[in-house]
Amino acid sequence: MALASNRNSAASFPGRTCLAVILAAGDGTRMRSTRPKALHKVAGRSMVGHVLSAVVEAEADRIVVVVAPTHGAIEVEAKTIARDAEAVIQTERRGTAHAVLAAREAIAFGYDDILVAFADTPLVRPETFALMRKALADGESAIVALGFEAKDPTGYGRLILKDGGLEAIREERDASAEERKLTTCNAGLMGVSGRHALDLIEAIGCENSQNEYYLTDIVAIARERKLAACALIVSEEEVLGVNDRTQLAAAEALFQARLRESALGAGVTLVDPSSVTLAFDTALAQDVTIEPNVVFGPGVVVGAGAVIRSFSHVEGATIGENATIGPFARLRPGATLMRDVHIGNFVEIKASEVGAGAKINHLSYIGDASIGAKTNIGAGTITCNYDGFGKFRTEIGEGAFIGSHASLVAPVKIGDGAYIGTGSVITKDVSADSLVIARERQIEKPGWAIGFREKNRK
Amino acid sequence: MALASNRNSAASFPGRTCLAVILAAGDGTRMRSTRPKALHKVAGRSMVGHVLSAVVEAEADRIVVVVAPTHGAIEVEAKTIARDAEAVIQTERRGTAHAVLAAREAIAFGYDDILVAFADTPLVRPETFALMRKALADGESAIVALGFEAKDPTGYGRLILKDGGLEAIREERDASAEERKLTTCNAGLMGVSGRHALDLIEAIGCENSQNEYYLTDIVAIARERKLAACALIVSEEEVLGVNDRTQLAAAEALFQARLRESALGAGVTLVDPSSVTLAFDTALAQDVTIEPNVVFGPGVVVGAGAVIRSFSHVEGATIGENATIGPFARLRPGATLMRDVHIGNFVEIKASEVGAGAKINHLSYIGDASIGAKTNIGAGTITCNYDGFGKFRTEIGEGAFIGSHASLVAPVKIGDGAYIGTGSVITKDVSADSLVIARERQIEKPGWAIGFREKNRK
Amino acid sequence: MALASNRNSAASFPGRTCLAVILAAGDGTRMRSTRPKALHKVAGRSMVGHVLSAVVEAEADRIVVVVAPTHGAIEVEAKTIARDAEAVIQTERRGTAHAVLAAREAIAFGYDDILVAFADTPLVRPETFALMRKALADGESAIVALGFEAKDPTGYGRLILKDGGLEAIREERDASAEERKLTTCNAGLMGVSGRHALDLIEAIGCENSQNEYYLTDIVAIARERKLAACALIVSEEEVLGVNDRTQLAAAEALFQARLRESALGAGVTLVDPSSVTLAFDTALAQDVTIEPNVVFGPGVVVGAGAVIRSFSHVEGATIGENATIGPFARLRPGATLMRDVHIGNFVEIKASEVGAGAKINHLSYIGDASIGAKTNIGAGTITCNYDGFGKFRTEIGEGAFIGSHASLVAPVKIGDGAYIGTGSVITKDVSADSLVIARERQIEKPGWAIGFREKNRK
Repeated sequence: MALASNRNSAASFPGRTCLAVILAAGDGTRMRSTRPKALHKVAGRSMVGHVLSAVVEAEADRIVVVVAPTHGAIEVEAKTIARDAEAVIQTERRGTAHAVLAAREAIAFGYDDILVAFADTPLVRPETFALMRKALADGESAIVALGFEAKDPTGYGRLILKDGGLEAIREERDASAEERKLTTCNAGLMGVSGRHALDLIEAIGCENSQNEYYLTDIVAIARERKLAACALIVSEEEVLGVNDRTQLAAAEALFQARLRESALGAGVTLVDPSSVTLAFDTALAQDVTIEPNVVFGPGVVVGAGAVIRSFSHVEGATIGENATIGPFARLRPGATLMRDVHIGNFVEIKASEVGAGAKINHLSYIGDASIGAKTNIGAGTITCNYDGFGKFRTEIGEGAFIGSHASLVAPVKIGDGAYIGTGSVITKDVSADSLVIARERQIEKPGWAIGFREKNRK
Repeated sequence: MALASNRNSAASFPGRTCLAVILAAGDGTRMRSTRPKALHKVAGRSMVGHVLSAVVEAEADRIVVVVAPTHGAIEVEAKTIARDAEAVIQTERRGTAHAVLAAREAIAFGYDDILVAFADTPLVRPETFALMRKALADGESAIVALGFEAKDPTGYGRLILKDGGLEAIREERDASAEERKLTTCNAGLMGVSGRHALDLIEAIGCENSQNEYYLTDIVAIARERKLAACALIVSEEEVLGVNDRTQLAAAEALFQARLRESALGAGVTLVDPSSVTLAFDTALAQDVTIEPNVVFGPGVVVGAGAVIRSFSHVEGATIGENATIGPFARLRPGATLMRDVHIGNFVEIKASEVGAGAKINHLSYIGDASIGAKTNIGAGTITCNYDGFGKFRTEIGEGAFIGSHASLVAPVKIGDGAYIGTGSVITKDVSADSLVIARERQIEKPGWAIGFREKNRK
Repeated sequence: MALASNRNSAASFPGRTCLAVILAAGDGTRMRSTRPKALHKVAGRSMVGHVLSAVVEAEADRIVVVVAPTHGAIEVEAKTIARDAEAVIQTERRGTAHAVLAAREAIAFGYDDILVAFADTPLVRPETFALMRKALADGESAIVALGFEAKDPTGYGRLILKDGGLEAIREERDASAEERKLTTCNAGLMGVSGRHALDLIEAIGCENSQNEYYLTDIVAIARERKLAACALIVSEEEVLGVNDRTQLAAAEALFQARLRESALGAGVTLVDPSSVTLAFDTALAQDVTIEPNVVFGPGVVVGAGAVIRSFSHVEGATIGENATIGPFARLRPGATLMRDVHIGNFVEIKASEVGAGAKINHLSYIGDASIGAKTNIGAGTITCNYDGFGKFRTEIGEGAFIGSHASLVAPVKIGDGAYIGTGSVITKDVSADSLVIARERQIEKPGWAIGFREKNRK
């Protein structure tokens, strides 16, 4: 049976256990990169991270990532998304079935559902993995293959469907002229009933020109054993495989389109959607406005009614309701802005809390600081948080006024309502409601400039 | 008669009067916004503002905007575009004809031409409204309906055209199989002869499944009374209706394409047109060059030969001939730059006049200031225009030299040719040609850093 | 014979000489520009510069650019790309053949191959010129015309091909109904055997409605004299002619697509390729990552593993391996960054060497400076390199620490390991390992702000 994909399906599999095997041992030669292919990013998250996250959402109980010997970094990354994810090493490259068997121990453990996924198809949705599990849970099929309708099927294996079931996956070179006309193709991902998985995979042989073990052969083997198989068909975009940087950019574009569409549907204004770069986890509330040319890194939450103006770069930051950010603002990880905060142009905020209604409008660097509500930070204010060795904090109270060009040498505290004179270097704590100045008197030398110009014109 | 739209038509209707009724009472639920739909913006102007502006250009003498009870903000906005625009409140939602009758008093007043427009179709051109008026002025038709050729007509009312006239507007659910094949669809906008308008609209009934009064029924009623009707056909893009944020983004994109095309045709270089965001009123002279990634807000005028470099954000500013702006420049409302001015990176100018040939090249904030011709403002200069309560002005003469990191504490005046030393905080006026310094001597502690590093490495 | 274009052909023509005649005398009225059309830029280089560069790569020995009397600037530009390029002036406008004869002296000199190119088709590849030369070198053809398959041939001259040879170029107005169906069109560029060139071109007459001499007539004249002609067919994009700003933008887009594709193929990550503006000569090493919204001007070299973050603007700069640039960084000509350098937000670097591992992370202007390895430049540091007349250098040693808001008044030297206190104006050299401070003590006026607020609230 070919199931229609259904975006609304909720994953929920009471009493059933699931193992996900993620194949991430490809060398990715065509990426021309020293970094493992699985660690290249889409929408701010590694490709393997996307796949891990999707199988976690589909309630996988155990996740095994099959990696190449030198790719330990993939395990580190995997554990940041699913703490219990394990990596196993594929020492030889002998085909997809051989790769899956690197997880033999886990497969033998006896999970109900086994999902086989690839680290280089980062766009597969959690709902799709859930539907694959549903197809296995129905109990009729031992195997569910993921397929897609190809605009141009050339080069892909074809799904041979018959009476609603999947008869075989036919590689193009083995396909008859009639079969080559089929456009329903194999995406590679598969769900296998845990009860049969090890038997079936071990039965796969390597009698082919490459002398490799192909997981796709599992369908024909299952059919020989009178086990049913079925296919789940999704869009070609969802199963896009990334083998080079052009495909990586294509995956990024598709993922961004998905994120933008979701934001628009949630009542966010994107003036020019294609000029906004979102991250996989960007959380934008209703009536947020994003002007053209804004980039979000991971970890951003924006409250209702906030406006992110053009040329802003925001990562790891929380922005309160009705706050205004930019243009030309940079919010770095740990920037936490309360409601009605104004952050203006050429301002950088890092690891700092900014209280409700505070304003930091021009040319400032605020790092490792807390700023009280309604405080006004003048143009060119710098928190000097680093002395070459350690980082120190600046604490500014509520309703304070920091004059332009102030240098706040941390650690330092400035009390509520205090007033810091223009151009001051503040090295000692300032009491509430004090005025502090640290400034040299101006000395005028009348007519000096006439002589200076004379001299230089000679 | 189906008229071809003609972009070159000049509006001019001597002796004829015109009423425009703009329906803006829709709740815009699908926008998912607390803001009335009509106030969402396209190219820097509210949608209702675009429609108002277009009917003003088509020489409407009176404009009535029909709004929902809680949408007083629409009236405020309307008056900023057409001072005499009136808002009337539609208390109940009973269909478009019912909405139009909220303006009954104005309709009964006896205008020659009545234009009915919608606040959520912001792309309709003034020329189109003028052509609708022309069709009425010809005297043959009591009604002119605006139509478009739909790529996919599903869901739209069809225009039933016969012998060059408009017989009826048929809602899809009432259309015969034959009529459903028609692709000429109803855009909703309408011109009605003022002589017949009230009679015809009041004759519209609500015998339909929704129990609402539909303005489209006016055509059949007119035909029954032997009054002629015609249709004016424009592109589907021009009558795009905005019901959600995706359509808002689509309207923005179409409007931007129109603005960009117009700029290119006028001899402006847009290196990457799709990366430039223009406003509805951006005025760019011949041989202006706009580099990639530039955003214009409303109210900008740029003189011939000026170059706006990448990552610049310009709103409410006037830029003289051959000036160079950016990259990374922000010009805010009231920035007035004379010819040959250079504004460099990370520079913000607000409410300031900058004289011919002056240079502000790096990391500066100039607000509420005037700067004389050929003056050079050093890197990191800040006009301290705000003391927590009021805003004050800085006046700098011609040919002055402001050293880096200067703080100019307003109100303050700096004379022609004066020279301000690096890092000075200037609080008193400076005479012409003076040198002013306000700086502490540097004190050196030899070898101190060795000890400091020792200590910190422990 | 119609040759297929082959991108891999290497140009190499031992013993053969070549003259390239580049027609650049068009007035470009539709550009609506005071600048000659040939000097408008694509990917950071003038159109005539692209054509010159291509014929140089195809090993032209002599280059003559035909210009209009007032367009001396084209010669200046031409010599920047090919030092020996000559300009000749076309005094009258009498057609392309007449324009080519402005280079009569060079044509008569006796080159083996003569290439005729146009300054307003900037996308023609060097390989295409090389293939035209190969076709001439084969000796069978006296003429090779460049053609393209037109999506819509209306308005173009058609190539009349017969038995693999080119019979004639037929202007549309002279074409039969049958010939008008042909879609293989004339691009205008031509290769002519030097042995026959002058005779053939001089035989061209002006018996046509415009009374002009058309180079296209050369084919029919050659055929009359029993000389063979052939055509080389390339894509329509490659021979795009630029006559207005819309076409200039289209050429830019096509050139950018070519550059981006090449970068992706070389193992560069472009997160959002269409948001990255490259220059004709941008050199990006493997595993460079370019985030969205980055603009490159000419002259940039980026080393392996470097990351250019969003909203960076880079021109004339060299970036070392594994360096990180931006977001919001501006590198200007002469910025030379060694490996592992960090340049952060709102930082401008001009004509400066920055040593390995040095950090300049926030709000700084570094111009005409050298900075030693591992030195840390604090936020808001400014090198004061200009005194209104001259530019002076700042030299900072290795492992130094420059506190925030420092002003370094050049000429000045700061020794290795020195430590500059926050907010200091440094006017004298600083010894290695010294601490230098230049700062006023802070003075506190308790309770002052209470009175100040009182007063202002009145």
